[in-house]
Amino acid sequence: MTFTKAQEFMAELLGTMVLLLFGCGVVAMVVLFASTNPTIPGQVVNGGYTNITLGWGFAVLMGIFISGTISGAHLNPAVTLALAVTGRFPWAKVPHYVVAQMIGAFLGAALVFAVYHAKWLGFDPGLENTAGIFSTFPAVPGFWPGFLDQVVGTALLVALILAIGDKLNNPLGANWGALAVAFVVMAIGMSFGGMHGYAINPARDLGPRLFALAAGFRNTGFENGVWLVPVIGPLVGGVLGALIYDTFIGKPLVRAGGGAHGVQGADPAYNVEHQS
Amino acid sequence: MTFTKAQEFMAELLGTMVLLLFGCGVVAMVVLFASTNPTIPGQVVNGGYTNITLGWGFAVLMGIFISGTISGAHLNPAVTLALAVTGRFPWAKVPHYVVAQMIGAFLGAALVFAVYHAKWLGFDPGLENTAGIFSTFPAVPGFWPGFLDQVVGTALLVALILAIGDKLNNPLGANWGALAVAFVVMAIGMSFGGMHGYAINPARDLGPRLFALAAGFRNTGFENGVWLVPVIGPLVGGVLGALIYDTFIGKPLVRAGGGAHGVQGADPAYNVEHQS
Amino acid sequence: MTFTKAQEFMAELLGTMVLLLFGCGVVAMVVLFASTNPTIPGQVVNGGYTNITLGWGFAVLMGIFISGTISGAHLNPAVTLALAVTGRFPWAKVPHYVVAQMIGAFLGAALVFAVYHAKWLGFDPGLENTAGIFSTFPAVPGFWPGFLDQVVGTALLVALILAIGDKLNNPLGANWGALAVAFVVMAIGMSFGGMHGYAINPARDLGPRLFALAAGFRNTGFENGVWLVPVIGPLVGGVLGALIYDTFIGKPLVRAGGGAHGVQGADPAYNVEHQS
Amino acid sequence: MTFTKAQEFMAELLGTMVLLLFGCGVVAMVVLFASTNPTIPGQVVNGGYTNITLGWGFAVLMGIFISGTISGAHLNPAVTLALAVTGRFPWAKVPHYVVAQMIGAFLGAALVFAVYHAKWLGFDPGLENTAGIFSTFPAVPGFWPGFLDQVVGTALLVALILAIGDKLNNPLGANWGALAVAFVVMAIGMSFGGMHGYAINPARDLGPRLFALAAGFRNTGFENGVWLVPVIGPLVGGVLGALIYDTFIGKPLVRAGGGAHGVQGADPAYNVEHQS
Repeated sequence: MTFTKAQEFMAELLGTMVLLLFGCGVVAMVVLFASTNPTIPGQVVNGGYTNITLGWGFAVLMGIFISGTISGAHLNPAVTLALAVTGRFPWAKVPHYVVAQMIGAFLGAALVFAVYHAKWLGFDPGLENTAGIFSTFPAVPGFWPGFLDQVVGTALLVALILAIGDKLNNPLGANWGALAVAFVVMAIGMSFGGMHGYAINPARDLGPRLFALAAGFRNTGFENGVWLVPVIGPLVGGVLGALIYDTFIGKPLVRAGGGAHGVQGADPAYNVEHQS
Repeated sequence: MTFTKAQEFMAELLGTMVLLLFGCGVVAMVVLFASTNPTIPGQVVNGGYTNITLGWGFAVLMGIFISGTISGAHLNPAVTLALAVTGRFPWAKVPHYVVAQMIGAFLGAALVFAVYHAKWLGFDPGLENTAGIFSTFPAVPGFWPGFLDQVVGTALLVALILAIGDKLNNPLGANWGALAVAFVVMAIGMSFGGMHGYAINPARDLGPRLFALAAGFRNTGFENGVWLVPVIGPLVGGVLGALIYDTFIGKPLVRAGGGAHGVQGADPAYNVEHQS
Repeated sequence: MTFTKAQEFMAELLGTMVLLLFGCGVVAMVVLFASTNPTIPGQVVNGGYTNITLGWGFAVLMGIFISGTISGAHLNPAVTLALAVTGRFPWAKVPHYVVAQMIGAFLGAALVFAVYHAKWLGFDPGLENTAGIFSTFPAVPGFWPGFLDQVVGTALLVALILAIGDKLNNPLGANWGALAVAFVVMAIGMSFGGMHGYAINPARDLGPRLFALAAGFRNTGFENGVWLVPVIGPLVGGVLGALIYDTFIGKPLVRAGGGAHGVQGADPAYNVEHQS
Repeated sequence: MTFTKAQEFMAELLGTMVLLLFGCGVVAMVVLFASTNPTIPGQVVNGGYTNITLGWGFAVLMGIFISGTISGAHLNPAVTLALAVTGRFPWAKVPHYVVAQMIGAFLGAALVFAVYHAKWLGFDPGLENTAGIFSTFPAVPGFWPGFLDQVVGTALLVALILAIGDKLNNPLGANWGALAVAFVVMAIGMSFGGMHGYAINPARDLGPRLFALAAGFRNTGFENGVWLVPVIGPLVGGVLGALIYDTFIGKPLVRAGGGAHGVQGADPAYNVEHQS
């Protein structure tokens, strides 16, 4: 099946919007309902960091369910860039994918703010302390700790996406590839979520941060350059992860007789496999 | 395979009853055993909100296992309505499905009350503070915050069910479609469970609330109109989600050459895929 | 493939032993390490009730991996009885299955005690308060609350096992049937674990309780009749669940043209599907 | 497909490095972020022992995704030894596999230390109390409690890997075999993680411990012989588990007419099944 540029754009936008709806949603739950007593009707406890890590993994899964077949569900400029650099995705499609991802992320954050608005204003009336629901912030000051964290996290993300989606590497796993990618994101959250909130995705981080700025939040990370780390780091890390995968796993598999890797978009099954 | 109206009715009733058995059951666990010391034999801790969100997802999975083949496991009037509005389900079947869902939900709640009766009376002798085990309540006062929450949550639920069950969209995922739907419900709970307890299902909410009223509970939500929010909101949201899915994902897939979507009930495999 | 009675006996024994190794193991973890500080090298925290419910589900999965093909992995006299009553399993095999389950459960409990022995003696030197690691105890006094809980829990267990293993009901799910059964057990733990510790299995409860008695534990439940509840309740509930499944789901499926249900043991695939 | 020794070496090294990245990463998260307030932007809570057990399971899954096809993803000298002893893996390949595993584990630990370096120095400036992030330590003094724990845990690990990977035993489960192995590791963590931190893998334990020594950590376990327990115990336990599996499950399956078991490496599908 082939799709028009407008169809791809809308699918990628919707998929990224769904990613952010669930992703920022679970952080909103854990932060805004942190002190709620569970024994009173209608109130809930928040699930803690376990739910944040499971929730972001499910968020990616939901985004793949929505956009996996039409756009391939990149949902992430770092994935789009890495696929383009390694010849898996045409450069001509990169611009409308990245724009769709940014708009979808912005809209997803806006809708989360609308849903939680009444609770949010009670929790943080000045919108001073909760930009962290939308975007990531460093655990320690300075550029390099967060940058290294983002490079490593995104390198793992992209290398594992390629490993899961490569028919030569994972011939039996195709029918649960979307779930496997969700597990990758859960794992990165559990193991690398502390230093810079595992953005590992420039659109997921910058789109909501722009919404926070537009909505009047303070301490958004634009005032001190924090916003740059989860934009540059993932782009570098994603390409690095793809190159490492191709060098040590992908190319040996091709040489061993498996034939050439397909190019994304050639057929629906391939889309599903290269999803995320 | 084709089934009689009575067989469909009983399957849908049993499936919804199983949904509520597990769903209200996990809330009963977390609320009634909130303060129990885990180091004394025979006593347990409760698992917190993580277990509530996992438990409701498993509850849907169990309901699908029971009724997926015979009735398609809607388990939810909002799903039934959205399928009918979009031509996936005959309007003539809507009434007996919705009645079966309501009765099943009522009976499931009643059986949970019977199982936990002795513990319940010790925890809340006047049945004044625990109607929240059966049905959902708002985190902040007013109609609109909860309504928006229910619309968004149910739109996500139905759009994702359609995405998972659409053979053109998810050709490889059919054999774990039931699990995928369970993950959708877990994700909605983790990300949108705070504002109105993620009812996202009129029968799941109203059936147990009617049981609570009949069983003599106080503060059931009937006295102040709260009961309306998780009835109207999901019906609106479900149709909205289905229309969004069809507009941006479903129809482009058909146009791209995949042929028409099937009509629910035509064959067992399709039932499994369009399960809720 | 056909197997000798001795091979079936050993597989069922090993499978139940593995079930108890993981099952009693996770309870031992949560109880014995309840107060351990996680920031000191070599020490861990315990995972709470979430881990108990996940852990027992995984325990069943592991038991199925070991014995699913050779013995069908009943691992539970309530399952064996319900299969026999409904004509799915020959009565002549019931005795050696139940004996294997009892011995396996006893040995699994003994090995857990050996592994945790040094820690256990520090936590409860008189072996007075920790028989609950091996077997289940009621949350409230009296026979009926626990009995009803065990009947409902085991009816759900067996009805869902039949739903998952019935080729007419779940044609696409066979290849993750073992995992589905694990999810059933997780769900029962999350939703029905409070009133009597979700034994839902006479061998899982009585075998370890006999070991506790033999090892010199006090307050084992033999002194006050508690031991009877998780023996009688599951046997009654299992048969009840099987009859409900057959009446409302199984027989309508056969009548709708699917042909007769197979008899367990006829072929390996069937074994996998009817695993417990 | 066949691969050169260098390709196998690099795949096994990368796979084990990925295992340790995620594995030590999740322990670093839980230990280093133990007291962080979740309501301040950019800070996280840690997920507790539930995340540790899920995280190590996912770590194995990620290692399998990377190296499963090329090297078979042993990632563990105890697995390599058990496969060799039971004729599933050529002895000639054992040395370069084990060296790759040791180097990969060392490098993974080093990269975790680099990512968390800034936070780590704030938490434990003298590097005196946090070697437990890298390697395992006993809960009670003495050789035998930890040794027994490691033998039992690794016997379960290897027996279950063989059960999952044996086509005669698990004919339908091959396409989610990698996930099944991840569940085995989660289960062992939940049920046997207390006595000696469930190393169950000499490379996973000794490689990072050597890095800790090289990086200047104190109390690394080399000063008192602790390091030996999770090296010897897993090697003994792995062989024991393989022999038990073959005696009671594997050989009866072959005798029942399933034909001989394949030898690892013969074809990619087999690699996937015998992974981890």
